[in-house]
Amino acid sequence: MKLLEDIIKEKGRVYPGNILKVDSFLNHQIDVALVDKMATEFYEKFKDCNITKILTVEASGIAIACSVARFFDVPVVFAKKSQSLNLGNDLYSSRVSSYTHNTDYDISVSVRYLDSSDIVLLIDDFLAIGNAMKGLIEICDQAGAGIAGIGVCIEKAFQHGGEDLRNMGYDVMSLAIIESMSEDGTIVFKAQN
Amino acid sequence: MKLLEDIIKEKGRVYPGNILKVDSFLNHQIDVALVDKMATEFYEKFKDCNITKILTVEASGIAIACSVARFFDVPVVFAKKSQSLNLGNDLYSSRVSSYTHNTDYDISVSVRYLDSSDIVLLIDDFLAIGNAMKGLIEICDQAGAGIAGIGVCIEKAFQHGGEDLRNMGYDVMSLAIIESMSEDGTIVFKAQN
Repeated sequence: MKLLEDIIKEKGRVYPGNILKVDSFLNHQIDVALVDKMATEFYEKFKDCNITKILTVEASGIAIACSVARFFDVPVVFAKKSQSLNLGNDLYSSRVSSYTHNTDYDISVSVRYLDSSDIVLLIDDFLAIGNAMKGLIEICDQAGAGIAGIGVCIEKAFQHGGEDLRNMGYDVMSLAIIESMSEDGTIVFKAQN
Repeated sequence: MKLLEDIIKEKGRVYPGNILKVDSFLNHQIDVALVDKMATEFYEKFKDCNITKILTVEASGIAIACSVARFFDVPVVFAKKSQSLNLGNDLYSSRVSSYTHNTDYDISVSVRYLDSSDIVLLIDDFLAIGNAMKGLIEICDQAGAGIAGIGVCIEKAFQHGGEDLRNMGYDVMSLAIIESMSEDGTIVFKAQN
């Protein structure tokens, strides 16, 4: 998605440890108009897949997931990180290792909101190592829910999460795929159709 | 807002410790169409206030904040809980005590995304004791940003956060105000215009 690539080049900041900060428009401050344009792309690709739920992880996936859900006219479910006192005990859950934060955490979804009748589109803002996404897949497997595909805004190809997921057979759509980046600000995107 | 009250009565579940679970439509699974209808109410009230930013706290405030921001055509900024390695060091921050989770945590906003030129509408899904909202107010004060008002979906009047904020002079709009609730499922709303 050319628009997203241009905004990443203009506003993204590269930090040591392969960290790309896009917090001016995606995951701290949110440009809602841009989010809606990204959501349209996911809708166009997956609109004929009979999607019943959009599944994401809190927190920064929620904005894009809600926008996507509006197009599909289906609910969002966001997996919660760590167990909340406000959440019931009947949970699907998965342990996730965070590369960025260098910690492990649990994500969980109530059994009330996902089951074997669901066809899910998994949505997140970032795909790097892919551990959060693999956690969502594990939760869908526990629920017996089908997975129509995976939509992410920004994929870091050099961290191989996208490659892993495609090798597992999932239909992954990434709106901007970063092949390489460096702290001098150079960001190289993979050519897409 | 009659529609929201009806949905709370139908789908809300009351648990010990004054906990109202609305996770089937607001803060785990999200009914995006309902969120948009709620956002319209906030827009109608505050549309002439020259709002420049919608400010909320992750995670469950993000959905309603993004919907509100779409109507105002301004960015959302969501305060992050605890300090993230992905966030810079130049932060406004406030310590918040969580009644529901019985813990303290820090919320923070980058100085890049809030300053004295901003007029902010504070949005959240719940208002109970009001500590998260008071934390957002402290962050706005640190930034020198103006606060046009506060919009919350569900206020628990018996926990006095709304009363505190109104006594502090803030214009608080709550779409459903719960006067009392009990574990047998009875929920009494405050009459509104």
